[in-house]
Amino acid sequence: MHKFNREFFAALDRDDPLAGFRGMFDLPGVTYLDGNSLGALAHSVRERIEQVVEQWGKGLIRSWMEADWINLPQHVGDKLAPLIGADPGEVVIADSTSLNLYKLAAAAIKMSERSKIVCESGDFPTDLYMLQGLERLLGGAVRLETVPRSQVLDTIDSDTALVVLTHVHYKTAEIYDMQSVTDIAHSQGAKMLWDLSHSTGAVPVDLNGAHADFAVGCSYKYLNAGPGGPAYLFVAKRLQERIVPPLSGWMGHRDPFAFSDHYESAAGIIRNLCGSPNVIGMAALDAALDLILEARIERLREKSMRLSDLFIQLLEDRCGFHGFELVSPRDRECRGSHVSFAHPDGYAIMQALIARNVIGDFRAPDVMRFGFAPVYQRYTDIWDSVAALASIMDTREWDDPAFKTKAAVT
Amino acid sequence: MHKFNREFFAALDRDDPLAGFRGMFDLPGVTYLDGNSLGALAHSVRERIEQVVEQWGKGLIRSWMEADWINLPQHVGDKLAPLIGADPGEVVIADSTSLNLYKLAAAAIKMSERSKIVCESGDFPTDLYMLQGLERLLGGAVRLETVPRSQVLDTIDSDTALVVLTHVHYKTAEIYDMQSVTDIAHSQGAKMLWDLSHSTGAVPVDLNGAHADFAVGCSYKYLNAGPGGPAYLFVAKRLQERIVPPLSGWMGHRDPFAFSDHYESAAGIIRNLCGSPNVIGMAALDAALDLILEARIERLREKSMRLSDLFIQLLEDRCGFHGFELVSPRDRECRGSHVSFAHPDGYAIMQALIARNVIGDFRAPDVMRFGFAPVYQRYTDIWDSVAALASIMDTREWDDPAFKTKAAVT
Repeated sequence: MHKFNREFFAALDRDDPLAGFRGMFDLPGVTYLDGNSLGALAHSVRERIEQVVEQWGKGLIRSWMEADWINLPQHVGDKLAPLIGADPGEVVIADSTSLNLYKLAAAAIKMSERSKIVCESGDFPTDLYMLQGLERLLGGAVRLETVPRSQVLDTIDSDTALVVLTHVHYKTAEIYDMQSVTDIAHSQGAKMLWDLSHSTGAVPVDLNGAHADFAVGCSYKYLNAGPGGPAYLFVAKRLQERIVPPLSGWMGHRDPFAFSDHYESAAGIIRNLCGSPNVIGMAALDAALDLILEARIERLREKSMRLSDLFIQLLEDRCGFHGFELVSPRDRECRGSHVSFAHPDGYAIMQALIARNVIGDFRAPDVMRFGFAPVYQRYTDIWDSVAALASIMDTREWDDPAFKTKAAVT
Repeated sequence: MHKFNREFFAALDRDDPLAGFRGMFDLPGVTYLDGNSLGALAHSVRERIEQVVEQWGKGLIRSWMEADWINLPQHVGDKLAPLIGADPGEVVIADSTSLNLYKLAAAAIKMSERSKIVCESGDFPTDLYMLQGLERLLGGAVRLETVPRSQVLDTIDSDTALVVLTHVHYKTAEIYDMQSVTDIAHSQGAKMLWDLSHSTGAVPVDLNGAHADFAVGCSYKYLNAGPGGPAYLFVAKRLQERIVPPLSGWMGHRDPFAFSDHYESAAGIIRNLCGSPNVIGMAALDAALDLILEARIERLREKSMRLSDLFIQLLEDRCGFHGFELVSPRDRECRGSHVSFAHPDGYAIMQALIARNVIGDFRAPDVMRFGFAPVYQRYTDIWDSVAALASIMDTREWDDPAFKTKAAVT
């Protein structure tokens, strides 16, 4: 006499005010729980890509002006801004998350007398790698202190120039309290840089409410802009004119088409642009954002929490005795939009799930991640995925050499 | 009794062994002489973009492996390599030209005891800007010497770590002798970095023949990969393991999916990758390269020289007395695939041409550029564009306020 059955979840889908969005995406025959890694394709995004390809084909070079490609970095940035509590003119679309993090970290070091950057071991690797590259390049001018999560706050001190943290942890989905961490950084005279890659589009963020200084994030997860879509960066208005871009390309020049020999920064957020921007990617993001904005971030967050609560409960109910250990916070308020379970055979189990078209992903050494992209997720996806998992575990279907050899990818 | 008439050019088109390529591109109703700025859309590229969007929609995250997205940076780099005289494993697709130049310049400084970088005033601005950004960031460790073209070779000395030059000048189309300049750099113990943006796909390049060290280039000009398509970089095999990437992102890590905290470079060219790559852009480039390779670079070069010779001759014949001054070398061997003329009213004249669907571009202060993308250019384009120009000049059609107010873009 179980409280849960498929009908329970089907009823939630019927009552879901966001249910209509599912049909706007291409999700053929899969139970997709990996929108935290690569978001799905919306029909409107496919159409927008076709449109921008037409603008290229028919308009050729003229489309930079006539289709306003030239202003996409700022226009799309302005569209994204409300999802992260930024004002117009504070966000720009550019390059990759890695590169944007490097730009802002280097600029922060240059605007400080200090050299210490505090970051977290186990944070998303590219963030650490980029900071390590900066440290190698600048020698003594940057000193990276990479400490476990539990020691991060105590490591921020009066020598700290910058604190770099990811708002929602890529593996555990644990959320930092942006306000209080930013306050601590500021109380020591340090600047704060947030990586919002696993937040934007699923978890509301209020950068200006928290007086954050800098942020970066990607577009291909909950924003659904497509594989390798361009990233974004945020600089609080009060700091924009103090940024001296280390990656000072012509698109960040005050007057790129004067073709002068000397770099002079553009005013405002635009100075953080570098080379020629990825037009197709920006257009895809532009269209993808419309759906997220229409769904509204508060409703997305509410649904996401409900989905992940139910997933945890059902998985533990039906598979708990198979040795799954919840890695993510149990408290929904402290958890982003994905749920991770550790299992010693997690890799093979995930491959067996994928073979059944239930798609999550795996993060070494033993973490299975299940993402809930609330804009297109169905409540029945929870039932179906846990049913598949239970069957795989009960029959040891995962214990097959074929499931133990491939490599996993974001 | 003129040797030139439209029939003369039409006959050249009929005899052109590359004539069949024109129909493979979308060039509706325009005389397009701006493929040096933004190449045209091939039907096969549109189809490839549609295909990769389908791979995203249907395959979702699985396509990183199943559609082999993960290896596109190297596979497409290998495909591009023969166009620039590189071997397999020496070219990778990544980021923008600006960023790739920065990566290699910073790496070259780190592998040298020297600090001086020689570059050319009037070179494409973003190259200079990126080097200036590196100089600002590294303080005394980099000293940029930016000198006029006539002084470049004399400025290379035993303090020089790196020489950065553009093979085909973006404004004049003047070609450096890659072999002899590289030899001079090496004779002083300096490394050589070539920007091939205005060469690749139109002018054969032999990096390894010249023993060049580094190169960068873009994909959206003669390679026709689309607006903001990803760039590439080349590192000679002998130097690859000495590169310490300053922009050390996870895609350049030895084992990105181990998610370790510490950066360790991948072996070979791959270490120069940074963040998640632009999949749609790489796929577009992949398809676009097929056409250039099929056309064969030697045939493209031969046709390009013929086109530009004829253009110069016809323009001077019919419009010379209107005050056009050839900025490009008259010697076809010293000239890339575009032709520039200076005219005090060049901006307005170019706008008047564009209004007649004859599309070239303008570079401040007074240069009109006409690019010949030999894979899709018609000989009749020369007749038609000069006929339009002659009419515009003879009637002073350009002398209209409407043609004097817009901004130009690459």
